[in-house]
Amino acid sequence: MVPKRIVVIGGTAAGPKAAARASRLDQNAEVILLQKAPELSMASCGYPYYVSGMFKEREKLLCTPAGVVRDPSFFAGAKGITAMVNTEAVRIDREAKVVNWINAAGETGMLAYDKLILCTGSVPKMPPIPGRDLQGVTTLNSMADADRMRAWAEHGRGKRAVIVGGGLIGMEACEALHESGVHVTVVEALPQVLGFLDTELALLVENHARSKGADILTGTGIAAITGEDGHVTGVRLADGRELPCDLVVMAIGVAPNTTLAKEAGLEIGRFGGIVVNDFMGTSDPDIYAAGDCVEVTNRLTGAKMFAPYGDLANLEGRVAGENAVLGDTVRFPGTIGSGICKVFDFTAASTGLSERRAREAGFDVVTAVNASPDKPGFMNAKPLVSKMIADRASGRILGFACVGQGDVNRQASEMAVAVAAGWTVDDMAMADLPYAPPYSQAIDHAIATAHILQNKMRGLMTGISAVEAKALFDAGGPLYVLDVRGPEEFKEMRLGRGENLIPLGQLRKRVSELPEDRNATILSFCKVSMRGYEAQRILEKEGYTDVRVMEGGLMAWPYAKER
Amino acid sequence: MVPKRIVVIGGTAAGPKAAARASRLDQNAEVILLQKAPELSMASCGYPYYVSGMFKEREKLLCTPAGVVRDPSFFAGAKGITAMVNTEAVRIDREAKVVNWINAAGETGMLAYDKLILCTGSVPKMPPIPGRDLQGVTTLNSMADADRMRAWAEHGRGKRAVIVGGGLIGMEACEALHESGVHVTVVEALPQVLGFLDTELALLVENHARSKGADILTGTGIAAITGEDGHVTGVRLADGRELPCDLVVMAIGVAPNTTLAKEAGLEIGRFGGIVVNDFMGTSDPDIYAAGDCVEVTNRLTGAKMFAPYGDLANLEGRVAGENAVLGDTVRFPGTIGSGICKVFDFTAASTGLSERRAREAGFDVVTAVNASPDKPGFMNAKPLVSKMIADRASGRILGFACVGQGDVNRQASEMAVAVAAGWTVDDMAMADLPYAPPYSQAIDHAIATAHILQNKMRGLMTGISAVEAKALFDAGGPLYVLDVRGPEEFKEMRLGRGENLIPLGQLRKRVSELPEDRNATILSFCKVSMRGYEAQRILEKEGYTDVRVMEGGLMAWPYAKER
Repeated sequence: MVPKRIVVIGGTAAGPKAAARASRLDQNAEVILLQKAPELSMASCGYPYYVSGMFKEREKLLCTPAGVVRDPSFFAGAKGITAMVNTEAVRIDREAKVVNWINAAGETGMLAYDKLILCTGSVPKMPPIPGRDLQGVTTLNSMADADRMRAWAEHGRGKRAVIVGGGLIGMEACEALHESGVHVTVVEALPQVLGFLDTELALLVENHARSKGADILTGTGIAAITGEDGHVTGVRLADGRELPCDLVVMAIGVAPNTTLAKEAGLEIGRFGGIVVNDFMGTSDPDIYAAGDCVEVTNRLTGAKMFAPYGDLANLEGRVAGENAVLGDTVRFPGTIGSGICKVFDFTAASTGLSERRAREAGFDVVTAVNASPDKPGFMNAKPLVSKMIADRASGRILGFACVGQGDVNRQASEMAVAVAAGWTVDDMAMADLPYAPPYSQAIDHAIATAHILQNKMRGLMTGISAVEAKALFDAGGPLYVLDVRGPEEFKEMRLGRGENLIPLGQLRKRVSELPEDRNATILSFCKVSMRGYEAQRILEKEGYTDVRVMEGGLMAWPYAKER
Repeated sequence: MVPKRIVVIGGTAAGPKAAARASRLDQNAEVILLQKAPELSMASCGYPYYVSGMFKEREKLLCTPAGVVRDPSFFAGAKGITAMVNTEAVRIDREAKVVNWINAAGETGMLAYDKLILCTGSVPKMPPIPGRDLQGVTTLNSMADADRMRAWAEHGRGKRAVIVGGGLIGMEACEALHESGVHVTVVEALPQVLGFLDTELALLVENHARSKGADILTGTGIAAITGEDGHVTGVRLADGRELPCDLVVMAIGVAPNTTLAKEAGLEIGRFGGIVVNDFMGTSDPDIYAAGDCVEVTNRLTGAKMFAPYGDLANLEGRVAGENAVLGDTVRFPGTIGSGICKVFDFTAASTGLSERRAREAGFDVVTAVNASPDKPGFMNAKPLVSKMIADRASGRILGFACVGQGDVNRQASEMAVAVAAGWTVDDMAMADLPYAPPYSQAIDHAIATAHILQNKMRGLMTGISAVEAKALFDAGGPLYVLDVRGPEEFKEMRLGRGENLIPLGQLRKRVSELPEDRNATILSFCKVSMRGYEAQRILEKEGYTDVRVMEGGLMAWPYAKER
C-alpha cells in the first residue's frame, strides 16, 4: 500500500490539530505541515498576557502541558509529522494536486498531496488611513507582533498608547499595556466596546475600564496616524481631536486569509472565508479547510458566519484531519458564538445571540437583565450582571451574556451548553447545577435570570432594561420613579432621577403617597430590583396598571449615579 | 372574595421560598409560615464556613444580599408573609384542614388552611451506639449546632476532633475544624470518602486532605464513643482502635423529617421521604411538600430518590408555592444529582450518575478518565482529573465527575447542563464554549474528556482506569509497563511498577526493545496519558494487539509513587 500523503498549510491552531489527528488515525499516512512563521502551535490567545509581563518566557506560548516546545523535532518524534517552518505555501495546483512552497532561505519546492488541509488563518484588518506604515503602529496578531509589543511595554511606563478598536483583542491589549504602566486610550468607532454584548452590559465594562484609569472613547473613528521622523506621535480622530501617543495598536478585527484558496479557485463565501461543508470539505473534494480562514454555520440562525476563535479552530481542525484520512465521517455542527474576555477585574462573556443580533436575524425576542452576587454574601461574593435572550413564541434561549467581577466563567459555560442544547427558559429555570457556598448561590445566578425572564414571559413582571429606562427619563413624560430600598442604601447612592424613596417594607402602608391615578406610569427599582419586583406585585394588587421594574436595579444602571 | 390561606411548615430553604412565591403570585392569599427554630431562611450550607471562622457575624447566614436579616418583620413588610418563629407544628388534621402548633413559650393554637405546604426538612442520622449522648457529640445540621461548633472551634487550637462520616458535610467539617487549628480525623465506614464519586477520584481527594494534615480512615466504622464525667474523651473503632478526642461530629447523613406527614397518614416512599407528584403535591390534594422531606425523581434512572440539597429545595419550594395558589401549573422535573464540595484546596464535584451508580441502575457503561490542567500553562494552570460516564449503546452521557485544584466549578456546571439535556459524548466533543486563556484551555477540559471517551468508544484507544491498572499489577501476570515521558520527568517521579522508560519521541526507533510477542500485554502511560495514547497508536501500527493506556497517567494515579 502506498501511504497517503496529507499536506497541511498553516501551523498555529487548526493546522497542527488537523495534522496530529490525521497522523494518529492513520499511522501509515505521511503528514506534512507547512508553516510560514518560525514557530508552531503558538498559543496566540495568550499574546496579551505575554505582553503584560504576566509571564516572561515566550517559550511558554509554544509548549506542551509537559513543558516541551512544539518544534519540528517534537512533531517528528511525538506525532510522526514532518513540520516545515519558515516555509510559505505560495500556490496550489489542484489539477496536479501539488503545493509550491518557498522558505526563508529562498529555497523553493513542491509537494504532491493526496489530501490538502488549508489552515491559513486570518490577517488583521488595516484601514487605509494616512500614517498606517509609521513605526510604532502595530497589530497583535503574530508571535512577532507579541515580541515587539512585549519589548516596547517593558519600557512603557509613563508612555502613551492608542488602541484602535474596542473588541476582544483591543480590550485585552488595553489591560496588558495598562499593566505595564502605559497610559492607554481605546478608540472605538461604534457606540460601544465589545460588539458581542448588548449596550447595557458593554457600558458596565467601559465604566470598569475607566475606573482602572484607561480612557475609552466610543462613537469615533480615527482619521489619521500622525508621526515625525517615521515614528508615530499621535492619532487624529474623525471628530478632529488629537491624541498624542507613542504606540498605536490596530485592533479593528481580522479577515480570513484566503489568498491561496482564492487563487486556486476554491469557493469563497460572502464574509470572505473559504466555503466548507459540514465535513470541513471545500469545493474541491481533495481539499479541506479549518480555522480562521473558513466560514462556519451559526447553529441558531442557520446562516454562515466568520467565527475566528481559537477553540473552534481546534475543533474544526480535528474534524478536517479525521475526514482527510478516513473519508467524510465526522460533521462539525457549527457554532453558537461563544466568547469570553478579561478586562481588568471584570470578565465579559457571551454565548449565542445578543438581543441586537437576534433581532437582526429576525427573531421576536424577550429579554431579562439580572444583577446579583455570584455567591452567598458570606463567601466574598462578587457582583454579576447578566442578560438572557429568548424567542418569544417558543421560549427557546437564544443567547446569554454576563459581565462583572464575579465568576462569569461558570455562568457563561453552563449557558453555552444550554443554548446549544436548545433549552427553553423553563428548562433553565429548573436546572440542577452543583451548589455549595464557595461556588454559587443556592439559586444559581443564571437560573435566577431564567426565573426573571419566565416571570416576564408569564406577565407576572413587567421589566425594562436600564437603556429603556434611560430613554423613558430622557423622554420627560409623566413618570413616578419609586426606589424601594432602605434609607441607608439611599443615603449611600441614588439614581438621581427625581425618585421617591419608600422602603419595600413600608410600601403596603404608604400606597397613598403614590399617584392617585391608577393608570400612572410607575418605575420601580432597588439595588438589584428583586424588591422592585415585589413592589410591582404589591402595587398591582392596589390597582395600578402600569408598573414597570427597572431590571437589575442600580447595580445594572450603567449611567451616572448620585453619591 | 375570601382570601385563600396558605400555611407553610418549615422555615429554612424550601419553606420560605414556597411562601414567598405563593405570596407574590397571589397578593390576596394569606400566607403563614411556621418555624420551629428562632431563625428563618438560614443559609445552612454555609455552616462549615461559619464554623471555620471565615466570617464572624452569624447574621450573615440570615441576611438578604442587601444585608437585611430575614426575620418576621422582614417577611411581613417585604413579602407580606406572617412568619411565626419558635413555633412547632405538632399535628395536621387533614379532615378539618387544621394545623396545631405549640411555641417556645408553651402557647398552643391552631391554624386552618386552604393549602398546606410541608417543608419539614431532614434530621441527622444517629447510629445507636454507646456514648452518643455524651457532651461533645454534635451534628452540623442546625443553626444551634453551628453556633456550638463555632464556639468550640474558637478555642480549638491543639484539640482533637473525630468526624464520623466522610460525605459532603463530613469533609466540609473536616476542613472547617482543621482551619481552626484542630487535629481532625475523619472515620468513614465505606472504603472511600464522598460516596458520590467513583473510587479513582475519591482517593485523590483523600490524598489531598491527608497532605493538609487531616487523618482519613476509611473502611472502618465506630463502635462506641467513650467519655468521662459525661464528656467525650474518644472514639472506639469497629476494628478496636481507640482515637482520643475532644469533639465528635456525627455526619453520617440525614433522613427526611416526616413525623408530621406520617402521623397525618400521607404516603411515604421507600427512602422514607414524603411521596410527591410532579407538581410537588402529596397524596392529599390540599397538601404540597418540598425540600429535604420529600423524595424526587432521578431524571436519569426514572427512580425515586432522596436528594437533600439546598438548591433543589429552593426550586421545589418555588414549584410548590406556585401550585398551591394557582392550581397545578408547574412541574418539577426531578434531579440528575449534582453536588460540589470544597475540601481544602481541592474541589470535588459530580453530576449525574457515577460509574458505580450507573451500573447499579442497570446501564451498560463506558467511561474515560482525563487528567489535564484547567488553563494554559502560562496562566497559572491547576490540575483537574475528571471522569465521564456514558451509555455504551446510545452514547448518552450519564454522569461526569471532576476533582482537583483547578476550576472544577466551570467543568461540573457545564456538564450538569449537558447531562440534563441528554447530550451524547459526540455532542460534548463539539461543544462551543467560551474560551480565553484566563478561563480554560482552547480545548476545554470536559471537551477533552469527551474526546478521550469518543476515541475509546470508536476503538481508537484502549484505556483502563488507575483502579483497573492497579488490579492488573496486583494480579502479577506478564505485563510490559511502558512510560513514554522524558528522562527528566522520570527522574522526578515514577510509577514504580517495573516500568520501562522509552520517551515517546524515540518510540518509533526503539520498538525492538519491546516484547517480541505482538500479543503481549503492554500498559502505556505518561504524565496525563496523552503521550500514552500516541504510543498506543504507534505500537498498533507495529502490530501489537493488546496495548492499553492508563487513563490520566501519573496525575490520576492515586496510589503510592516513587520519588
